[in-house]
Amino acid sequence: MAEKNSTNVQLVAVGSVAMDTIETPYDRRENILGGSASFACAAASFFTQVGMVGVVGSDFPNECTDRYRRFGIDLEGLQTVEGETFRWSGVYRKNMDERDTLCTALNVFAEFAPDLPKNYRRAPYLFLGNIGPELQRHVLDQVDAMEFVALDTMDLWINNMRDALCEVIGRVDLLTLNESEARNLSGEHFLPAAAMKLMELGPRYVLIKKGEHGTMLYSKEEIFILPAYPLEVVHDPTGAGDAFAGGFMGALAEAGRADEQTIRNAILYGSVVASFSVEAFSLERLERITRDDIEKRAEQFRAMIRVPDMP
Amino acid sequence: MAEKNSTNVQLVAVGSVAMDTIETPYDRRENILGGSASFACAAASFFTQVGMVGVVGSDFPNECTDRYRRFGIDLEGLQTVEGETFRWSGVYRKNMDERDTLCTALNVFAEFAPDLPKNYRRAPYLFLGNIGPELQRHVLDQVDAMEFVALDTMDLWINNMRDALCEVIGRVDLLTLNESEARNLSGEHFLPAAAMKLMELGPRYVLIKKGEHGTMLYSKEEIFILPAYPLEVVHDPTGAGDAFAGGFMGALAEAGRADEQTIRNAILYGSVVASFSVEAFSLERLERITRDDIEKRAEQFRAMIRVPDMP
Repeated sequence: MAEKNSTNVQLVAVGSVAMDTIETPYDRRENILGGSASFACAAASFFTQVGMVGVVGSDFPNECTDRYRRFGIDLEGLQTVEGETFRWSGVYRKNMDERDTLCTALNVFAEFAPDLPKNYRRAPYLFLGNIGPELQRHVLDQVDAMEFVALDTMDLWINNMRDALCEVIGRVDLLTLNESEARNLSGEHFLPAAAMKLMELGPRYVLIKKGEHGTMLYSKEEIFILPAYPLEVVHDPTGAGDAFAGGFMGALAEAGRADEQTIRNAILYGSVVASFSVEAFSLERLERITRDDIEKRAEQFRAMIRVPDMP
Repeated sequence: MAEKNSTNVQLVAVGSVAMDTIETPYDRRENILGGSASFACAAASFFTQVGMVGVVGSDFPNECTDRYRRFGIDLEGLQTVEGETFRWSGVYRKNMDERDTLCTALNVFAEFAPDLPKNYRRAPYLFLGNIGPELQRHVLDQVDAMEFVALDTMDLWINNMRDALCEVIGRVDLLTLNESEARNLSGEHFLPAAAMKLMELGPRYVLIKKGEHGTMLYSKEEIFILPAYPLEVVHDPTGAGDAFAGGFMGALAEAGRADEQTIRNAILYGSVVASFSVEAFSLERLERITRDDIEKRAEQFRAMIRVPDMP
């Protein structure tokens, strides 16, 4: 099988694989493929050879594994164990800007402590998706010197495992989180102040996701601000942040470097892939686009944000 | 007096002149100079010769007129009538993103129906600040063929004088309003859809202000998205939208044209002037900066939003 010869994995993404049940103001879907690893790997696959680290239960449909394969995702790091796959269900309120979690059933994810395939340990780019900080550390401990490691997190870990989270944040190059999480973890309301505080934990970069309002990248030297690609309709925001991170890390891995200019460009690519992702449920929109579609929207987006140099 | 020889007025700005009482989570100030005309004219004065159209009562302090003069604002269009100056008081909630109006006393503003000075009627740029739509129409009726007219409005007029508002909007080049107002007036939640609907009223451009999330400019052909200049602390957001509009119109008037590239650049200047304005109460911050400070921040801002062209 192809995934047993994963010699050229450039980016490893660890995260959840989930079966989601999602209700939006317009539609409802049951047991659809989701989870941070699914979105991140599918998004990254347009740019680089990505390997997925995750766990599924014995109930996980073959059809879903086939979908991963069609993206070209390396699956050597995806374990199948006896039991049920992680399940999440949530309801989006009107306007899609807030959601309520109805149910989280960790199932096989509760005992997950992966051994990384040998090839993955030498991959230069690593994305630690939104999972517990001790699990993120467990993965980080198994890798060699990395080019660039990014870490995502969420309120659950900020509120309940702050010390472990801060420790692992201290070991990565880039921390990504959303606005309210940045405020929660830093204790600062204004985002520039929040970012400065978060950089004191160790990472060189703090990337704050503001949903429909775009992203801000902070480093000691520079600030980079990118609005979101404007969409007329959002069908399902689930996984947008993961698709963003996957596209971002994939573009970095493709470039093979992580200087500030490359990072800015990769953030633009991440935003574009995320903008496609939210146009349908699950991976459905990403399954219907090509790299060429991404390039076209990236060009449109560049034109939308360009300020001319005046005479 | 200088203001009686206003032969070179390039931009006319009509709006309110107010004495504001403002409470923020950090501070409180009574009877400070405010109003849409004050902020718009002060902001525009860095770029062009601006003339103010407004009304004050016999209680209006000479000290405030002097402050206008020090900005170089032409005051031939500023009437003084018997009675009290317009007064507004409001309280900003924590985080400055929402405010409650405590009191609005129109006073001399209630009967305001200005006759524009002759020189103002030939000025090529006009900003119809946030005043009642019938008053905006009254001003528009007095001007000759204009290069470019921009109109600002607010929920009060959208809710109570929608027909008159829509009529006057149909006669201007650019409509500017904030996010919730754009939704309210268009009946559409998603901003791109809202902007398309608002363009059907007549204006070539719709400029949606999103506060700390920046601005979006829509035309039939193009979208331009600009984030806000990131500030560590906001002291008083009052007048930010007016300072933005004044800086924007001033930069257009200075350029002497209103093509899309010039408009984009003018939006950047408007954002920069607004970012200074909110760093203090009233016109205090704008009184302490020079054009050079604006240019420096504009350059920093350009660097923050630049996406490199990748090889």
